[in-house]
Amino acid sequence: MTTSDELVFLPLGGAGEIGMNLNAYGFGPPEDRKWIIVDVGVTFGGQDEPGVDVILPDPTFLETERDGILGIVLTHAHEDHIGAIGWLWPRFKAPVYATPFTAALVREKLRERGLLQKVPLTEIPLKGRLELGPFDIEFVTLTHSIPEPNGLAIRTPLGLVWHTGDWKIDPNPIVGETTDDARVRALGEDGVLAMVCDSTNVFVEGEAGSEEGVREGLEAMIRSCTGKVAVTAFASNVARIDSTIRAAQACGRSVCLVGRSMHKIVGAALSVGILKDVPPFVTEEESGYLPPEAVLYLCTGSQGESRAALARVASNQHRHVTLGEGDTVIFSSRVIPGNEKAIYALYDQLLARNVRVVTDKDAHVHVSGHPCRDELRQMYQWARPRIAVPVHGERRHILEHAALAQTLQVPETVTPRNGDMIRLAPGPAAVIDEVPAGRLFVDGDIVLDSGDEAMRDRKRLGAEGQVTVSFAVSAKKRAIVSGPDVRVRGLSTGDEETLEAALDDLAAAAEAAYHRLSSAERQDEDAAEEAVVRAVRKAADKIWGKRPLVDAVILTV
Amino acid sequence: MTTSDELVFLPLGGAGEIGMNLNAYGFGPPEDRKWIIVDVGVTFGGQDEPGVDVILPDPTFLETERDGILGIVLTHAHEDHIGAIGWLWPRFKAPVYATPFTAALVREKLRERGLLQKVPLTEIPLKGRLELGPFDIEFVTLTHSIPEPNGLAIRTPLGLVWHTGDWKIDPNPIVGETTDDARVRALGEDGVLAMVCDSTNVFVEGEAGSEEGVREGLEAMIRSCTGKVAVTAFASNVARIDSTIRAAQACGRSVCLVGRSMHKIVGAALSVGILKDVPPFVTEEESGYLPPEAVLYLCTGSQGESRAALARVASNQHRHVTLGEGDTVIFSSRVIPGNEKAIYALYDQLLARNVRVVTDKDAHVHVSGHPCRDELRQMYQWARPRIAVPVHGERRHILEHAALAQTLQVPETVTPRNGDMIRLAPGPAAVIDEVPAGRLFVDGDIVLDSGDEAMRDRKRLGAEGQVTVSFAVSAKKRAIVSGPDVRVRGLSTGDEETLEAALDDLAAAAEAAYHRLSSAERQDEDAAEEAVVRAVRKAADKIWGKRPLVDAVILTV
Repeated sequence: MTTSDELVFLPLGGAGEIGMNLNAYGFGPPEDRKWIIVDVGVTFGGQDEPGVDVILPDPTFLETERDGILGIVLTHAHEDHIGAIGWLWPRFKAPVYATPFTAALVREKLRERGLLQKVPLTEIPLKGRLELGPFDIEFVTLTHSIPEPNGLAIRTPLGLVWHTGDWKIDPNPIVGETTDDARVRALGEDGVLAMVCDSTNVFVEGEAGSEEGVREGLEAMIRSCTGKVAVTAFASNVARIDSTIRAAQACGRSVCLVGRSMHKIVGAALSVGILKDVPPFVTEEESGYLPPEAVLYLCTGSQGESRAALARVASNQHRHVTLGEGDTVIFSSRVIPGNEKAIYALYDQLLARNVRVVTDKDAHVHVSGHPCRDELRQMYQWARPRIAVPVHGERRHILEHAALAQTLQVPETVTPRNGDMIRLAPGPAAVIDEVPAGRLFVDGDIVLDSGDEAMRDRKRLGAEGQVTVSFAVSAKKRAIVSGPDVRVRGLSTGDEETLEAALDDLAAAAEAAYHRLSSAERQDEDAAEEAVVRAVRKAADKIWGKRPLVDAVILTV
Repeated sequence: MTTSDELVFLPLGGAGEIGMNLNAYGFGPPEDRKWIIVDVGVTFGGQDEPGVDVILPDPTFLETERDGILGIVLTHAHEDHIGAIGWLWPRFKAPVYATPFTAALVREKLRERGLLQKVPLTEIPLKGRLELGPFDIEFVTLTHSIPEPNGLAIRTPLGLVWHTGDWKIDPNPIVGETTDDARVRALGEDGVLAMVCDSTNVFVEGEAGSEEGVREGLEAMIRSCTGKVAVTAFASNVARIDSTIRAAQACGRSVCLVGRSMHKIVGAALSVGILKDVPPFVTEEESGYLPPEAVLYLCTGSQGESRAALARVASNQHRHVTLGEGDTVIFSSRVIPGNEKAIYALYDQLLARNVRVVTDKDAHVHVSGHPCRDELRQMYQWARPRIAVPVHGERRHILEHAALAQTLQVPETVTPRNGDMIRLAPGPAAVIDEVPAGRLFVDGDIVLDSGDEAMRDRKRLGAEGQVTVSFAVSAKKRAIVSGPDVRVRGLSTGDEETLEAALDDLAAAAEAAYHRLSSAERQDEDAAEEAVVRAVRKAADKIWGKRPLVDAVILTV
């Protein structure tokens, strides 16, 4: 059994999906590893997780290693990199490190979970450096669709890992500095053992494009508008907010922020000195007194989220903001896969009010924050890693990224899956272990395992409905003395009368099934209930052609 | 009040969505219109309609006009044009007309609903003609992604309507004849009052491309494969099936059909003389004895449908078909909006088995069946209608199509919504009435109104879960004599022990609420149950931070 030092990389999120990033680096002998965690992100629930807003990476393995965790280092403030901090920090209880803007938003999250006083959160300046045991971590400024995107140069006694986080190469990012390519090239000169790199846009040729072009495109588009204008974008894209504000200013429009996260992010940006020289905003109430051509709404809801500002405006349910004939909505955003139906429905709702809809297909009003193939090629030329480790992708992104790295003559590539413990040194890169990985669902206030029976039941309830049959039986003879009372939820026959008949059929089925039981069988309440459930399920299938969940409740009096 | 003849067009489906086509044309004075119905299609349920497979256009208005309905004419056999015939025919009870391949599939649908002997179904030959009262209907052969796509030239005393149905211009459609442009030009010469036309691809420049190119692309791709090959495509795309079979033959592979609808469509095609000279298929069982390089599976499931053949293969749950390292799946299909997540998950499942995935992004293995902008321009030049009536589109498609028609100098355009009754003649086109339009849900064996409370409850059940509290009370004193018994579905606390505690809390809340009621209040059972429901709902919110549906059952003994 070896006891010599190893350097390992362990993704628990982000290697299988774009989002929900949770990465760990371990150093030391296998029986006594020291760990740093890089990013603690979430993803969002969809049709397969009804009622679940937020999904977390399963941290079980790292919990067992908690004593060895030296710190949690955050690359940038997107939800898929910091969103789980409030939920998972209590499982790690390690100090947290982030640059100022990221730290401002992390504080907000910790406050929401009542953790603000408990979590040691240290601000690292941009281009700062941090030593955590065997890990010497340098923050390298990159460009992305949020302020302060940092790559991490992680130096260890067994080599340097270049963890890019999310990035692109933007020669004019509007907010923040440009990509510090001199520093990345210097890392390449020092010798990069492994590059752990963003795969999001690996299927897109060329370059993502600069924010500067979007600023120009937005201004030209807004200038052509005569009525009210609403621009919807991700609130976290502060450069886009800045661009929109400047474009509005150039066109003589006052900006009104609409939506909670717009206010939150703008507040965080102002707190760290970003956006500080923009003209004052108008409130929603004030905006109503301005002529249409003098106002620009900056709204949340570009993904068709039903509770976001733009959806409420589109359905005419917003308290202060209304749009109609002659007005324009500019989607300064992309369509995230999975959101198509919601977004297209939102377009149609706006068009139904004769609002003009402009998207990135119609005008240059959006660029991606992730590197396309030419940028990836450039990064590999700068960093020249020995090992390519694609992350931040679904399986096909990771495989395609590995194939691209091979064409660039990177000597080794690995294609990690969540839970793969990958030895980066010594020796060739290899998966040396698999640890539990998965997803946890934040269901209301409770964190559930993704395999929890409740989630399976909910999907079935949603598709098939629920039947509950209750009756009371006498304690001695176990004869039915009241009921059966039948309740159905989520099942209809289209009219009251036939529904009454259906309920009678279910009650009769329950009664008949109970009467078929011997008095000995009736003594076993669980078995008796199960017999009733089976009969009611069969009757329901006959009535509706569906398989609802069925509960039988036998009360003994 | 006018009693002169009018020609009206009434879309009840397809003008607001791509799919669910249901069109009606009316002729006569308003108080005595004669009607023909063109197409009776469905759309499919998604995340907003859990448990609903099929969605129908609401036919309520046409039911009230039933005595005037002269016939139901079907343009082609896609589900969104014929899928509702079995559900809605009993509401119209009019004779049905279709060309042979369409009729074969319609018979199948009628058989499933026990209507085969009841429905008068008349086969019309390709290029045939049909007179129904004031309507003289000519079937014009077009090209599309299914055999026998027909446009309808509908002649009336007030002018000719050119109803295109779904079409493209394919110079070599592989199966069937090419677009009968001579006939369409002749209609233009005769004078087309209105063209009711497909809007699906109005946002796509250029042309859809020919099936012939796909045949070549498929063959080249299959030739490059060494292991097993599976091709997935819409079963109804018989030309694609033909192309795949020929390509397989050219590459020395035997074809095995996998999936119920593949067999159904191939059967229908053979029954009308299409596909008749193809080599024999091998069964799933036989395919297992062939070497990998000698087999090609033609599978359903290109949209990631969870119960379709390909999904079962990808999850290794298919009885006979297995794929792994060295094998290839070719998606000869597009990604229908809304299906992205399911399809990408399917890609990843296949990639996780080291199966190569090829899509229309990687190779020329698919073309659309709908006209792109150049084809639309061509059609307008041929038909030269006085009125452009875009259909088969969401709101934005219909508006864009109308804008395109205006650039082509069509004198009038209308932008219909479902339920708009549009007068085409006499006088300028105008919406003269709005009739009820909407959607019906096929929920198991029952057809529900889309506003049915059951559907709202199901969404809430899926997201929030269900709590049922039952207890028995004495008839006289109305004191609790058994229970409360609490059942929860779709709610978890993560472990048994805390769940028990949660159930106890709910029972306590129910009991306390009941005890707070005066004995007079307890006499009103509904009010008493409502009081208990409110208390339990509140307790559930406290435990879970969720708002489940709550039922209280009070049994009197």
